[in-house]
Order: sequence, then C-alpha cells, then structure tokens
Amino acid sequence: MSARNQRDGHVLALSGGVGGAKLALGLARILPPGKLTVVANTGDDFEHLGLRISPDLDTLTYALAGLDDRERGWGRAEETWTFMRALTSLGGENWFQLGDADLALHVERTWRLRTGFTLTEVTDHIRRTLGIASRLLPMSDDPVSTRVETDEGWLDFQDYFVRRRCEPVVRKVAFVGAERARAHTEMLAMLRDPALRAVVLCPSNPFVSIEPILAIMGVREMLRDCPVPVVAVSPIIGGKAVKGPTAKMFAELGLEPSARAVAERYRDFLDAYVVDEADAGMTPPEGVAIVPEKTLMLSLEDRDRVARAVLAAADAVSGKAPDGDRG
Amino acid sequence: MSARNQRDGHVLALSGGVGGAKLALGLARILPPGKLTVVANTGDDFEHLGLRISPDLDTLTYALAGLDDRERGWGRAEETWTFMRALTSLGGENWFQLGDADLALHVERTWRLRTGFTLTEVTDHIRRTLGIASRLLPMSDDPVSTRVETDEGWLDFQDYFVRRRCEPVVRKVAFVGAERARAHTEMLAMLRDPALRAVVLCPSNPFVSIEPILAIMGVREMLRDCPVPVVAVSPIIGGKAVKGPTAKMFAELGLEPSARAVAERYRDFLDAYVVDEADAGMTPPEGVAIVPEKTLMLSLEDRDRVARAVLAAADAVSGKAPDGDRG
Repeated sequence: MSARNQRDGHVLALSGGVGGAKLALGLARILPPGKLTVVANTGDDFEHLGLRISPDLDTLTYALAGLDDRERGWGRAEETWTFMRALTSLGGENWFQLGDADLALHVERTWRLRTGFTLTEVTDHIRRTLGIASRLLPMSDDPVSTRVETDEGWLDFQDYFVRRRCEPVVRKVAFVGAERARAHTEMLAMLRDPALRAVVLCPSNPFVSIEPILAIMGVREMLRDCPVPVVAVSPIIGGKAVKGPTAKMFAELGLEPSARAVAERYRDFLDAYVVDEADAGMTPPEGVAIVPEKTLMLSLEDRDRVARAVLAAADAVSGKAPDGDRG
Repeated sequence: MSARNQRDGHVLALSGGVGGAKLALGLARILPPGKLTVVANTGDDFEHLGLRISPDLDTLTYALAGLDDRERGWGRAEETWTFMRALTSLGGENWFQLGDADLALHVERTWRLRTGFTLTEVTDHIRRTLGIASRLLPMSDDPVSTRVETDEGWLDFQDYFVRRRCEPVVRKVAFVGAERARAHTEMLAMLRDPALRAVVLCPSNPFVSIEPILAIMGVREMLRDCPVPVVAVSPIIGGKAVKGPTAKMFAELGLEPSARAVAERYRDFLDAYVVDEADAGMTPPEGVAIVPEKTLMLSLEDRDRVARAVLAAADAVSGKAPDGDRG
C-alpha cells in the first residue's frame, strides 16, 4: 500500500466516554465521511430502572451527532430534568441522572433490544437516524461487566463511579465475561483489512475504558499483530488526569499517575504516543515514537488539531516501517 | 346497620379515566380520609416502547394527587415534552404522547412489575408515595385487553382510541382474558363487607371503561347480589357524551346515545341513577331511582356537588329499602 493509499484508508478508534469522544469527534471532522469507525467500551453498560444504559456509546453518539452538552461534559445539550423530579416524587431511584431527552435513547434502545435486535443493530440504527457518518460499534454484543474491587468490597462500575463518586479505594479492576465475549466481527475484519490506515486509542481511562476492550478474547493479540500503526493519546497531562478518576486509580493501584505509566500498559502493541507538551521529555517504552502536542481539548479546533497530530503520527510510523510499507 | 353507620361506611367506586376521575376526586374530597376505594379499568393497559402503561390508573392517580392537567384533560400539569421530541428525532414510535413527568410513572411501574411486584402493589406504593388517602385498585392483577372490532378489523384499544383517534366504525367490543381474570380480592371483600356504604359507577364510557370491570368473572353477579345501593352517574348529557367517543360508539353499535341507554346496560343491578338536569324527564329502568343534578364537572366545586348528590342518592335508597336496612 502506498503512503497515498494509506491516507485514504480507514481509521479504527477505541474509545471510552467523554475524553475519548472528544478525539473521536476530531477524527470524524477531519477524515473523509465514512472513514472512521469508533469501537466503544461497553463494560460500563448496566440496567437501571429496567432500562439498558450504555454510557460510553451514548456519549459518543451525542458527541458525533453534535448533541452533547460541552459545558456540563456529559449528556445532551438543551436537556430538561422533569423526569428526574417526577421520579424522585414517586420515591424512585434517583442516584443516576437521566435527562428527559437522554431517556429517549435509553427507552428506544431497551425496547429494540427486547424485540430481538442486537446492540450493534440498535446502535447503528440510531447513529444513522441522527445522521452520524462514522460507524459506531459496541466492543461486543456479548455482555461484559466492569467491576471494581475496593476497600468496601466488589462494586459494579456505575455503583463505584456514579453512586459512590469514585470514593472507595480501588484495589483491582475486573471485566466479568470478557474472556468469553466475542470481539465485534466488524472490528476484527477491520484489523485485517488492507485498507486500514491506523488504530487509535483515544485519551480514555486505561483501567476502565480501554482495557475492557483489550480484555476481550483475541483483541490484544490482534493489536500486537496488526500491520498498521497503533497510536494512543495520553489521558494524563503532567501527572494529572484531564477528567475523572484516572489519576486517583493509578495511585490506589500503586502506580505513578503519568503519561509514561499509561504507555507502559500498551507497550506490547503501541507504535506512537501523542502526549501533552508538558510530557514531551518522558522516556517512551522501547520502540514507541513520542509526539508532543497540546492535548487538552476544549474547543472544536483543539479536537481537530489533536486528531491531525494522531494521523500524522500514524502516517509517520507507516513511512518509517522496516519495509517502508506496514500496510 | 343504622343510617348513621352507613354514612360512616366505605364507598367503592368503579371508574375509567378522565370523566370517572372527576367524580372520584369529588368523592375523595367529601368522604372522610380512607373511606373511598376506586377500582380502575385496566382493559386499556398496554405495553408501549417496552413500558407498561395503565391509562386509567394513571389518570386516577394524577387526579387524586392533584397532579392532573385540568385544562388539557389528560396527563400531568406542568408537563414538559423533551422526551417526545428526542424520541421523534431517533425515529421512535411517537403516536402515543408521553410527557417527561408522566414517563416517570411508566418507568417506575414497569421495572417494579419486572422485579416481581403485582400491579396492585405498584399502584398502592405509588398512591401512598404521592399522599393519596383513597385506595386505588386495578380491576384485576390478571391481564384483560379491551379490543374493538371495527370496519377495518379488530384493533387493540389504544390503536383504535389514540392512533386511529376513534375514527374506525365500531361493531363490537371484547375484553380478552376477562372470563379467566380474577376480580381483585379486595374489591370482592369490600362487596361483602357490612361497612360498605355504596357502590358508585363513575361517569365513564360504559362500553370500554365500566363494562371491562363488569366482565370480570363474578363481578356483575356480586353487584346484583350486593346489599348496598349501586348508584351510577350518566356520562351522557342530553344525548351527547361529555368527552370522548361514547356517543359515537352508541350510534355505531345501533343504540340511541342517551342517559337512558346507559342505565339499560346496568339495569340488572342499578338502584339509583344520577343524570343531568337535561335528562330529568327520562323514563328510568324499572326500580331505578332517578336523581337529576348538574352533572357537568368543570370546577372542583362541581366535583364535590356531584359526589354529594351520589352519596345522597345512595343513602336515600338505603333508607327506602324494604327492611329499612339494606346493609
């Protein structure tokens, strides 16, 4: 494959929620329509009030459709909260905030799943209806549940993350069902596709957003064997997480919260690593190219810029591959 | 039982939705707290978007809790519609209007039913949480489905009533499952209770709101044998229905839409019949006392007034019973 062909190729991004969705949107904006596939972590999925909720798929859907609330950082823009108020007055469980518009996605997904559609089919129907050009895939149609062992015992992820606001001390993270879950066939096909340009690990929490995807049977091995560049963007800037409990979890797991520590977790397959300029001096794992960039994504322009840096890093690695053509 | 004791007795009201709920509220307001039990038609219940919806129970719940929208005539006051707009943008089924606050009741009910609670338990939990002093019962915990045979074939009730806006011509009404459904044990117990003061048939559509309750195994027979007065309020005023398709259904079923025609359907158990002053001259079925009253209920005072007329009619019948004591 020539370098020119590679630049027309497809990009496969692995993503969690908010941070990952920012880069996914940047990639969707700068790539030609239809050239991006985003595989979402579904280890956070849970059933709440009888509704099937897929937080990372939802966040990605709203971000890619331009429906997300950029100020709040989660959920939909122009959201209303009448349902939550009414639910509270009925004595219902109100620890998980469900906006009125957001609820439409959960209700529609839940009844379509009950009707017999797969999560992949439902997700694809919704992204098409919302006019999202990029493909959006759950990591698997099989159930995988992220659970967290804490000083208070094992907790379901949303219990730990939302109800307990990440307060318990994390000792271990497990992905129940991952060893039996089948990776998404489309993800596997893409990883073998000569038209693939790069695999991107979005700047999401490694422990609970990226590693559930890697834990699925065969995925990590395929990334190791993958002929195209694998590029990650660090979710840690100067020892701090941009958002969420990433840095806290590092410390509790006995690891130094750093861009380097994230890269170590991917070292068996990582080719290039986009880090913040604050981390430009880090020593990369052997064989990993370091690409410093302003990685904090506040504006749409930031998203586009980081996405361009990721693709440039991938294409640079491709050009440097021993045979001059890794594809 | 003395007349004085009767006036301290319990009232059992059978009701459909909007019209019936107006009288139910009037009864709840003028009776001592806890002296009213309302049995709701559940033949209209259906599953929509995976949610279990009980339109008449909902309408009664909102009316008795003071949460109903009196101007619109259905649903909750101060309702918002963000969910419906979002659902429409997702390509979801939007023929049945679900307000954001209303949705909380459907979601809470549905997941509690899935958890194993009965409709009776869920309904009771909700009415207590909302501070409703009156007991509210579904006619049965067994499924009964009102279906309508029309010139376009058999239709589920909500299909006919909401989606098709009662446009198809009705030939027949059936209550699927009624012959196997068990009447609510609490309703049966009340009908045998010496402390019962009266049974009230609220001014609801006879064909699709009251008769589903009467169709349940044994209910009609118990009303016939009931020692206390059975009083109905006519849903027809001067040949016209106050609301909904009652008059249209009468005509399509080959019946004259009149207060008298409604009474004929209850003649085997009816003791007193509250009709509008416009119908004061009607010939009642044999043995039925006619009580003219302004039956149009616009204000809260109207509801109270009609409720008082109903109780006065019941107590008058009790006083006139052959042995002077029907209880």
